[in-house]
This record gives sequence, C-alpha cells and structure tokens, in this order.
Amino acid sequence: MTTREEVARKAGVSVAAVSYVLNNKPGVSDATRQKVLEAIRELDYKPSHAARTLKTKKTNQLTVFVNYLGDAFEAGILNHLEMESRMFGYFVNFQTYHPEREEELRHFMAGRIDGVFLLGQSLRPETLETLHKAGIPVISVMKPVEPGPVTAFVDIDWTASLQKTIRHLKSEGHLRIGLMANLSETHAHRTRTLAFRQAMKAEGLPFGETDILSGGGRLEAAKAAMLDYIRIGRLGEHTAFVAASDLMAIGMLTACRESGIAVPDRLAIAGCENVLMTLQTTPTITVLDYPRPEASVAAVRLMVEAIRGEPVASRLFDSRLLVRQSTHMGG
Amino acid sequence: MTTREEVARKAGVSVAAVSYVLNNKPGVSDATRQKVLEAIRELDYKPSHAARTLKTKKTNQLTVFVNYLGDAFEAGILNHLEMESRMFGYFVNFQTYHPEREEELRHFMAGRIDGVFLLGQSLRPETLETLHKAGIPVISVMKPVEPGPVTAFVDIDWTASLQKTIRHLKSEGHLRIGLMANLSETHAHRTRTLAFRQAMKAEGLPFGETDILSGGGRLEAAKAAMLDYIRIGRLGEHTAFVAASDLMAIGMLTACRESGIAVPDRLAIAGCENVLMTLQTTPTITVLDYPRPEASVAAVRLMVEAIRGEPVASRLFDSRLLVRQSTHMGG
Repeated sequence: MTTREEVARKAGVSVAAVSYVLNNKPGVSDATRQKVLEAIRELDYKPSHAARTLKTKKTNQLTVFVNYLGDAFEAGILNHLEMESRMFGYFVNFQTYHPEREEELRHFMAGRIDGVFLLGQSLRPETLETLHKAGIPVISVMKPVEPGPVTAFVDIDWTASLQKTIRHLKSEGHLRIGLMANLSETHAHRTRTLAFRQAMKAEGLPFGETDILSGGGRLEAAKAAMLDYIRIGRLGEHTAFVAASDLMAIGMLTACRESGIAVPDRLAIAGCENVLMTLQTTPTITVLDYPRPEASVAAVRLMVEAIRGEPVASRLFDSRLLVRQSTHMGG
Repeated sequence: MTTREEVARKAGVSVAAVSYVLNNKPGVSDATRQKVLEAIRELDYKPSHAARTLKTKKTNQLTVFVNYLGDAFEAGILNHLEMESRMFGYFVNFQTYHPEREEELRHFMAGRIDGVFLLGQSLRPETLETLHKAGIPVISVMKPVEPGPVTAFVDIDWTASLQKTIRHLKSEGHLRIGLMANLSETHAHRTRTLAFRQAMKAEGLPFGETDILSGGGRLEAAKAAMLDYIRIGRLGEHTAFVAASDLMAIGMLTACRESGIAVPDRLAIAGCENVLMTLQTTPTITVLDYPRPEASVAAVRLMVEAIRGEPVASRLFDSRLLVRQSTHMGG
C-alpha cells in the first residue's frame, strides 16, 4: 500500500505539504498542490479515511437531518443544500431524524461529520452541547421552535408572509379563516402556527383554538382531518383555510373533491411553500413562494463560515404570495 | 476519558467481551451483554468511532445512492429501506448519486460504510471492484441496466407487469400505445423501456422508436415533451401512453389539461409505480402497484445476509395493476 511518505518523495515535497493538500488546508502553493495531486494519481494513493479522521478531525462530510423523506418541500431544500455544499467541496448525506434515536445518533456522529444541517428540528440540549464541544456547527433551515444554542438558522419571516396570505383572503371576502396545522411541539411547523396566530391578530381577525385543525404535516392526515370537519357539519364555520404545508393543502383539496365541496367557491384553501405539485392539482393552489434556493445557499454559507470559526448570524427572507385558483373566485 | 479496559473491569468481564458487545458480535451471553451495557452507561463510556472503525472495520452504516431527491417513488423506497435497516441495528444515510463524482465517492466510502444500496444505478466496474475488495456488498432495489458484478437486486418482473397494463389498454380499445421513457443509458428506467418493448411484442402490438417520447424521468420534462407532441400535431398517432414513472405520467396529464385534451377520452395515460399523488390528480391515474415495502424489506434482508458473508440471490416480485380514471372510459 502506498504511504503518504512515498507520495511526498515522488512529489519532491515534505510530508506536511502532502497532508496540507489532502486536508484542503491553505498555506500550500498551487504548484506544490499540483505536484502532490499528480503523485497521488500516479501512485494511486488512497488515504485511509479512518486514519485521516483521527489525525485531522475533518471529514468534509455534512449531515442533514430530514423530518420526512416523502415531503416535496424538504426534498427541494435537500437538493439545493447538496448542490451548494458541493461547491465548497463538502459531501452531504441525509438521515431521517427520529427524536427517540437522538442519543444513538449523537454517539454515531462523533468524528464522522464537520457540520449538521437541521430542517427546523429542536435537538436536545445535551446533543447540542456534545456537538458544540466537538466543534461541529449546527445550522438550521427553518427556525427551530427552541433556537437556544443552535449556531444559526435561515427561514422566512413567517408572520409578515402569512399576513400577505391573510390580506389576500380578506380582499376576497374571507373573514373566518382556519389553519390546518402540524401541532407537534418539536416540529418547525410550530413556528408557522405561532406566526399565523400573530398575523391574524395583526389583521384584526378572530382566531382561537377551535380554528386550528390538526393535519400532522402529512397529506393523508390532513385529508382525514378535513373529512372529519365536513362530516361533523363544521363546514360554514370558516370560508377559507391556510395549510401550514403544501402537502396538507393538497390533502384538504382531495377531501373537498371527494365530498363535493367546490374550491374556492365554498371553501378557499392556501398553502405556503410552493412545491411543484401545487401547480398540478385542480384547482391550482395559492401559496407563499418559500425561497428555497436562496435559503439553502444562505445556510451553506453560514455553515462554511461556522466551520472556519467565523461568527454567524441568522437570516430571515421575504416570501412572495402567488395567487392561484384555490383562493381566487373566477380564478 | 473512560477506556474499554475500565468498562471491562467495572463489568467484571474480559476486554474482548466488551469489544464483542460494542460490535454487536455473537458469542456473548445475554447476562454478559447486560453487564457490559450497564457499565457503559454508569461510566458514560463513549467509544471513539474513528478508532473503532480502524479496529473492527464495521461501521453499522449503510449508504443508499439516490437518483433524484424529489422523486416520490424513490422517497417511499428510502423510507422502507431505513425502517427495515434499523431493525437490524444499521444506520442509513442517503447521498445523491452523480456519475461524474463516482471516483470521489469511491475514495470517500472506504472505511465508512458496511454496505451500499443502489436504486438501479450501474456503478463503474472499478467502483464495484473497489467495494468488492473492501468486502462491501452492493444490493440494488430496481435492476441495474448492467447487473454485472452487483451482488444482487430486487425488482418487479417488468415485462410481465407491463403486459398487464397493455392488456388492460387493449381491452379498452387501444392498439396504438406509446411510451414516455427516461432514455438515460445508465438509469434503472432503461430496464422499463426494454421490458415495455418486449411486452408490446408479446401482446402483438406494433412498437418502434417513434413510439417513444423522452421525458427524462421528471415531471417538467415529460410535460414539455407532451406539449411538443401535441403542438407538432402528433396527437392521434397514439390513443394511449404508458409513462415509465408516475412523475412523468403527472407531467403528461398537466400537458393535456393545459392543451384541452380530455383524458382518457382522447388520450389514455398510465403510470407504473403507484405514488400517493396518482390518487390526487384529476383524473386519478392507472398504475402498476410497485410493492415498495416488500421489495425494500427483501433488499435489507439480502444486505444483512451479504454482510454476514452468506450467498445471496436476486429476487423479482409480481406487481398488480390498479385501474383508475386515466385509462378507463366512464371510470
């Protein structure tokens, strides 16, 4: 097996220079880097990653914790996080986050990754402490419910954005607006529920606990909640609903179609992410256009800065409202 | 820092026994295992994974190479692969597979994973050889176009399954049936194209190169291909289309809706995966019900057996046809 020493001899440089090149550290001239890379190719040198990890503590690997692999909104973010991370030489892997497995995961991550991306999950304090001690930054796309010691997050300004949706619904004559929410205490959707409450208040509209339906963040659960709502005769209490995720908006639309409820004539429905599928449904769905590419790029920049030890600050984006058929009479 | 030796002393067992427990190896009694786990907890012992990897060569980590993170069909398989792998104590991570990054990935995987799941990708021979030499099994869900030295795969019998779709379309009066395909030479969808050709032949129906449209496996590309087909006046050449993926079927449906083409009256459209969204479109889409849970469970079993060094054999499943509105007149 070829050793680092042989690569150094072949390239005519020091072993330290080889290490610098292998670990992508600054302080090596381009010419030296070139010589080392040629020697590596010629000798077919394959560094042992386990051995390398012990020495350099850097793995060039970032992990993203996913909430649910079937969510098109999250999939879009993953795509963008991956593309942007590759620009900085990082590999990105994805793992589903299961709160009950957090201890397992904590042990598992040690020494294997340089950074963690969250999709709004609130990790336990002891996990954050472990990561912090190991010098592993945590950057979240979507604001965690408990931002606590998370290094930084990017998200949209949910209150300002949902106010746009509510103002549009008001202009269409809707004054009784419900929310299809994901009521999990630890899910990023909780941020949306809190923001919706604030936005309704800011717009001077009534909103209480009975105006919230629980759709669990999934299409099938939101569909079932809507069918229940219709079955027990609640239709009429609200003339419009906002869903905290597009999948839930699609589920509600399906429930209305199966029950013969015309959308938007009898019930207007809006989503808030702009996944591709909201253009494929009948009617098409009014949504907030969550700037997934921009938010993902910003998250990767924060990660790279945090890994370099630079101070990082959270960032909130604006979000446009895209009015489509599901909320616009005659639309 | 607590050492393995201290754990052994505390538990009153040998250091070897501690190692056996840590590495999930057989040959330790339940009582010993219990004592070791208690000592680990009491001493808050955290094995260094990098050091462990060097010694045991096992990482308890499996990697799945994904083709496209936005594909609902693949997302379903990932979910099932993950759930089942966890039953066997494995962590599963996901990475998008980019053919142009294969060399990078090859170096990167060394020493980091115990097994690779493919979703039908054909890895390069040198990558397969590297993995083989490292004792890392490769199991594919969906048959790779070039099965070559891949350890094993699970898939449905595409020819027999697509014959069911074709026979159904024939019974609805369709004799000119086109295929919306993903023509990438290396993508698992190629298996479907080859099978479709065989199935059409077996059913005695004409099928040539001009009966294939190229939809790239994506919703938007299939929609664009269908809009082109309509615009250049080809509508009428076929009365039905089968799409090699459900996302492409949804894209075709959108193209028809935007062009005022009634489905199934003027054109019948069938998919072949049964993703949830095929029930949310108008009309709902006729599909093959790819047995994702069963195929995923079978793939994990093959992986576990292959890691143990047992011989493994590929497996083909049957697939049901679910007739829905998009192919059934008056349906």
